[in-house]
Amino acid sequence: MLDSCTRPELVTEITLQPLRRYDVDAAILYSDIVVPLRAVGVDVDIKPGVGPVVGQPFRDQADVARLRPLSPDDVPYITAAVRSLTGELAGRPLIGFAGGPFTLASYLIEGGPSRNHDRTKALMYGDPALWHALLGRLADLATAFLRVQVEAGAAAVQLFDSWAGVVSPEDYRQAVLPHTSRIFAALGAFGVPRIHFGVGTGELLGLLAEAGADVVGVDWRVPLDTAARRVPPGTALQGNLDPAILLAPWDVVESRARAVLARGRAAQGHGHVFNLGHGVLPETDPDTLARLTDLVHAASADPPAR
Amino acid sequence: MLDSCTRPELVTEITLQPLRRYDVDAAILYSDIVVPLRAVGVDVDIKPGVGPVVGQPFRDQADVARLRPLSPDDVPYITAAVRSLTGELAGRPLIGFAGGPFTLASYLIEGGPSRNHDRTKALMYGDPALWHALLGRLADLATAFLRVQVEAGAAAVQLFDSWAGVVSPEDYRQAVLPHTSRIFAALGAFGVPRIHFGVGTGELLGLLAEAGADVVGVDWRVPLDTAARRVPPGTALQGNLDPAILLAPWDVVESRARAVLARGRAAQGHGHVFNLGHGVLPETDPDTLARLTDLVHAASADPPAR
Repeated sequence: MLDSCTRPELVTEITLQPLRRYDVDAAILYSDIVVPLRAVGVDVDIKPGVGPVVGQPFRDQADVARLRPLSPDDVPYITAAVRSLTGELAGRPLIGFAGGPFTLASYLIEGGPSRNHDRTKALMYGDPALWHALLGRLADLATAFLRVQVEAGAAAVQLFDSWAGVVSPEDYRQAVLPHTSRIFAALGAFGVPRIHFGVGTGELLGLLAEAGADVVGVDWRVPLDTAARRVPPGTALQGNLDPAILLAPWDVVESRARAVLARGRAAQGHGHVFNLGHGVLPETDPDTLARLTDLVHAASADPPAR
Repeated sequence: MLDSCTRPELVTEITLQPLRRYDVDAAILYSDIVVPLRAVGVDVDIKPGVGPVVGQPFRDQADVARLRPLSPDDVPYITAAVRSLTGELAGRPLIGFAGGPFTLASYLIEGGPSRNHDRTKALMYGDPALWHALLGRLADLATAFLRVQVEAGAAAVQLFDSWAGVVSPEDYRQAVLPHTSRIFAALGAFGVPRIHFGVGTGELLGLLAEAGADVVGVDWRVPLDTAARRVPPGTALQGNLDPAILLAPWDVVESRARAVLARGRAAQGHGHVFNLGHGVLPETDPDTLARLTDLVHAASADPPAR
């Protein structure tokens, strides 16, 4: 899988495949959160059925020192893929992709996927200096990786801090927010929408917005009207349909999708980007996704220009 | 492990061990959420490193029919253990233990632990009649299992619906609340405090209380002051310290525990039972737990009677 992320023709093809099948309003760059880590020399691979696995988990300052800055020359395949994609997309926006600092730190410290993120939190609580050094470098990495994509033509960026929802608001503010804020501030100069994604982040929505996101991902646990009250006016909301609903009969999918759309429209002053609250589950019927995409377009009072 | 749950002398010993080591204010019955399932003939075991595994996962009405009612004669070891414990505890309360309906349903449907609970939700959305038949029987099972414990001397009950936080409030209300309400209503006659526990349930706290719980578990993601605003006056809060904090140096543990206690005291009209937000992590130093227990007692302005 990681090999496919470094071959521009494959990145282009895989990024375009969903758009051939579904009438979605944007493409998102096919990549993986560990791509920039590998590009600067971290021994990381994706094990089938497991996920990202790090050869030598991070423990100390010497490990942090291994994380050198990323330059565009480290990821020529990203520049090539984004250029090729913006041509092929003919005006349909391409969303850039990068992993967020907490989630990257968790993979590096745990050495792989983790249920409780214990080692990660132990380091976060136990050695704040090392923690901030690590997250600082990861923030630089994410910033550089997204900058490459925007400079090559990406029309928006999405920062995937998927597991940030496992920390309390107090911990997020102290341990993560400063780094995410730096990423979004650095990208502000480009004027592209900045999307901030995580799951289980109901209590963090205000902080995700405070970090500088223009759009905040909302999983299915928080109704959109509740989510709207937790972010400042002007912050848009994205997501909200439980991916598991797509395993239900169509009438259930339809009524739930319509309920999400109605709540999104009612969230005055925010705006709502319809999406699933997390990734598509592997056993989902592709036809259901196609019908859902068409339903969302048909149901939207003011469909987006194409 | 399941064998040890059916041997009264082992249940008694393991239940008492933490009280010998830590000055905690109550004991909780050593058991497992699948004990009543096995007691009525479900082919379930606990695989080391995996968790509960069900031989023949539940798919249809015939599977539900396999869940016959539980009578006290099915669990004589529970009656014997609770009687022995209430003698040994000499007035210190014993909390009864049972799994909640969503969590039990998830193990039965998935056949084991699950990341996304997809099959569970697919059944919940796709076949509401089968879902409610299953949860109805699981609610009967939990009620009967807790009743045996209270009749043998348990001074409180705790319903562990650990994974209920993976559903939205709307789904919880429709698919889970009616069954949990029935459990708590049936136990109301005994006049013992009813504790309702889950993780990731920030958006469900009001519904967990509405189900009839006197005490609602709050994991570390929701600050106690926020939690207090989401439950009716009079509902007590339990928990709130992230178990991972116990992996940090003592000064961090102390300041975080004091912060939780302070927020608990400030939650006027609710009451707070200090606890971790989830189970103790295996790598926790037992000495840290002992110091924490002593700290909580020393810091409490109004220590509980012993």
